[in-house]
Amino acid sequence: MPDAILDDISHRRYNPLRDSWILVSPHRTKRPWQGAQEAASKTTLPQYDPSCYLCPGNKRAQGDVNPNYESTFVFVNDYSAVKEEQADYESVDRDSSLSTMLLRAEGVKGKCYVLTFSPSHNLTLADLSPSQILPIVNTWTKIYTSHLSPKSPLAQVAQPTTLAPHSHSESPATPNAQYRYMQIFENKGSAMGCSNPHPHGQVWVTTGTPEEPGLELTQLQKYRREQGGANMLEDYATLEATKKERVVFENGSFLALCPWWATWPFEVMVLAKEHKRALVDLNDKEKQGLAEAIAEVTRRYDNLFETQFPYSMGIHQAPLEGTKEEIEASHLHLHFYPPLLRSATVRKFLVGYELMAEPQRDITPEQAAARLRDCWGELYRKKLE
Amino acid sequence: MPDAILDDISHRRYNPLRDSWILVSPHRTKRPWQGAQEAASKTTLPQYDPSCYLCPGNKRAQGDVNPNYESTFVFVNDYSAVKEEQADYESVDRDSSLSTMLLRAEGVKGKCYVLTFSPSHNLTLADLSPSQILPIVNTWTKIYTSHLSPKSPLAQVAQPTTLAPHSHSESPATPNAQYRYMQIFENKGSAMGCSNPHPHGQVWVTTGTPEEPGLELTQLQKYRREQGGANMLEDYATLEATKKERVVFENGSFLALCPWWATWPFEVMVLAKEHKRALVDLNDKEKQGLAEAIAEVTRRYDNLFETQFPYSMGIHQAPLEGTKEEIEASHLHLHFYPPLLRSATVRKFLVGYELMAEPQRDITPEQAAARLRDCWGELYRKKLE
Ligand SMILES: O=P(O)(O)O[C@H]1O[C@H](CO)[C@@H](O)[C@H](O)[C@H]1O
Ligand SMILES: O=P(O)(O)O[C@H]1O[C@H](CO)[C@@H](O)[C@H](O)[C@H]1O
Repeated sequence: MPDAILDDISHRRYNPLRDSWILVSPHRTKRPWQGAQEAASKTTLPQYDPSCYLCPGNKRAQGDVNPNYESTFVFVNDYSAVKEEQADYESVDRDSSLSTMLLRAEGVKGKCYVLTFSPSHNLTLADLSPSQILPIVNTWTKIYTSHLSPKSPLAQVAQPTTLAPHSHSESPATPNAQYRYMQIFENKGSAMGCSNPHPHGQVWVTTGTPEEPGLELTQLQKYRREQGGANMLEDYATLEATKKERVVFENGSFLALCPWWATWPFEVMVLAKEHKRALVDLNDKEKQGLAEAIAEVTRRYDNLFETQFPYSMGIHQAPLEGTKEEIEASHLHLHFYPPLLRSATVRKFLVGYELMAEPQRDITPEQAAARLRDCWGELYRKKLE
Repeated sequence: MPDAILDDISHRRYNPLRDSWILVSPHRTKRPWQGAQEAASKTTLPQYDPSCYLCPGNKRAQGDVNPNYESTFVFVNDYSAVKEEQADYESVDRDSSLSTMLLRAEGVKGKCYVLTFSPSHNLTLADLSPSQILPIVNTWTKIYTSHLSPKSPLAQVAQPTTLAPHSHSESPATPNAQYRYMQIFENKGSAMGCSNPHPHGQVWVTTGTPEEPGLELTQLQKYRREQGGANMLEDYATLEATKKERVVFENGSFLALCPWWATWPFEVMVLAKEHKRALVDLNDKEKQGLAEAIAEVTRRYDNLFETQFPYSMGIHQAPLEGTKEEIEASHLHLHFYPPLLRSATVRKFLVGYELMAEPQRDITPEQAAARLRDCWGELYRKKLE
């Protein structure tokens, strides 16, 4: 039976990375849309905004002044969700067994960084060339390295690093507490909760393993054990590189594809083709490959509906500290979760059924990949200039 | 140590219903907000809109004409996400073991209903009195009953039912296929993907158990086995009714509370106080109690920021068909997931960190419950009239 049958019947697809399912209803895009429209995004920002707390030379909330940085700039979030120092949590009511079972909590310490991608207020990753994205990949690698457990097998391959003095506001000499996990991510566009258009991402490190990377790690280890040491995502990259129907872009080191189990309409996964446990496993050429893959994905996104395409992006890789098995089972990959479905202003809402029962998507990942493959080439905004 | 310490330190709380964790950062509401604002919702809708496909007497997409219904009206969605009839899914590539493991899918059949809550285009649950909500509870019960497996222990308690002829467009005589699970839900407000303000909810039935009810069912059965037959949610209701700090409203049969593990800022769970497996377990008085709890929650929501408060709501209860253990472990409860955080126009975005790592909330559930307790009384709009 040809794969095409999947364009016509409702089905569920299995996500082996999360051990979860999603519902696919390909015929459903035919329904008319009378609901919310996103505001078309403003594309006329100034290169420098005196009121932006991320622009070079400006003052931030707590009084610090940003340096006149030239590519990236890292500082500790003035409104961090987790802090390095706080009172210990002790649970109340140890006497009641119901409370112990049903009102469980644990303290979390950590650190939240903000990382600007460019000094220009009005650029986005889609506007940057691979060689302009490379410094961001390098900065991510440095932050990761600076928090890596000295006991991790990854510490041997990591280049010793201090964040360059002009690129952060914290002294690199301050020894970091040993945290367990680092989540690097970007919220782009107000539709994805971004509160400042200046191009930037965030990095949160925490004492515990958060839910999503924890789920993935469990699944990756299970596969490794059951498949005699094979890596699930390396196998997946091999499979998709052969099949091609979900591939959006490919270079020597990375694949960008709409995963079989994609939830968001134009969800993309950027995947190292060979087994890479974390950013520190990449050589210079592979880092360039990653920068190029990011440039290709974000430019195609903007070209798709000729708009500043909103998304949340995150990097999953080995925990900062973990067992040898956990580190070896990890595989570097990036998730892009963009909400738009039909146009620059009509998004897919993951709401009622999705929240209460199961994620549901309307177009198939194969249809999404075909459309993103077609959006290659120059950024639409450049052509209009 | 007093519970108050949780207002000041970052911590994770455990959700025993899903076996998952969420990050709580109570100090984080202090940050300024420069991001997206929701459009303030229009409150000047007409009572009848000739272009609305849900108003009595109007024509729908596929040409059917709505009857002049007086309270609720049920019909099969003109753009259903799942269908009763479709080709069988057969997986491709059975020969490749990588494909078999990594490209898994299964067909899903089912049925999607739309259910209007009132003939008036401009009313919402918050505007309705408990006695006006009672017919909705009765209709939900009837739809559930009409799909219940004759083999279920619940079939013995259910009142034999046909949906009254004026309240649906499908013949009640058509025998239903035996589906496994029914998800009743409502998306309210354009911020939650609702494409038509006419008060309505949806009901999707499917051949498989969707992810969320599946997770809950696993956890409920585990608790039941480990706790000698006790029900997790009945125990939880008892515990919260004693503690009071997370309770928003309580009557003889139902509790409305902000659960210990709430993700959304003003998330509410409506919980039967005694063990009820499904809607069919409620007697008339208990159904009135549920209608009252729904009225209390939705009115307080609107009063909180003096706006039409958006949310997704869903009912979790026993599967339509299942083992005796699954049916007995089930416990009727409603989830309300509302996105607003600070005002009628500023929502909480569950984006980057939340999607990539772990859900994160800013105010504690105890703070949210205290604010919702304070919002009792007449609907703010009535006072303005
Ligand atoms: O069916 P509706 O109300 O048009 O659509 C809404 O609810 C559905 C079920 O939660 C979602 O899949 C859609 O994204 C949402 O817009
Ligand atoms: O920290 P920001 O960018 O102000 O905030 C944004 O990202 C955070 C992390 O995903 C979310 O918790 C917030 O809801 C969102 O608005």
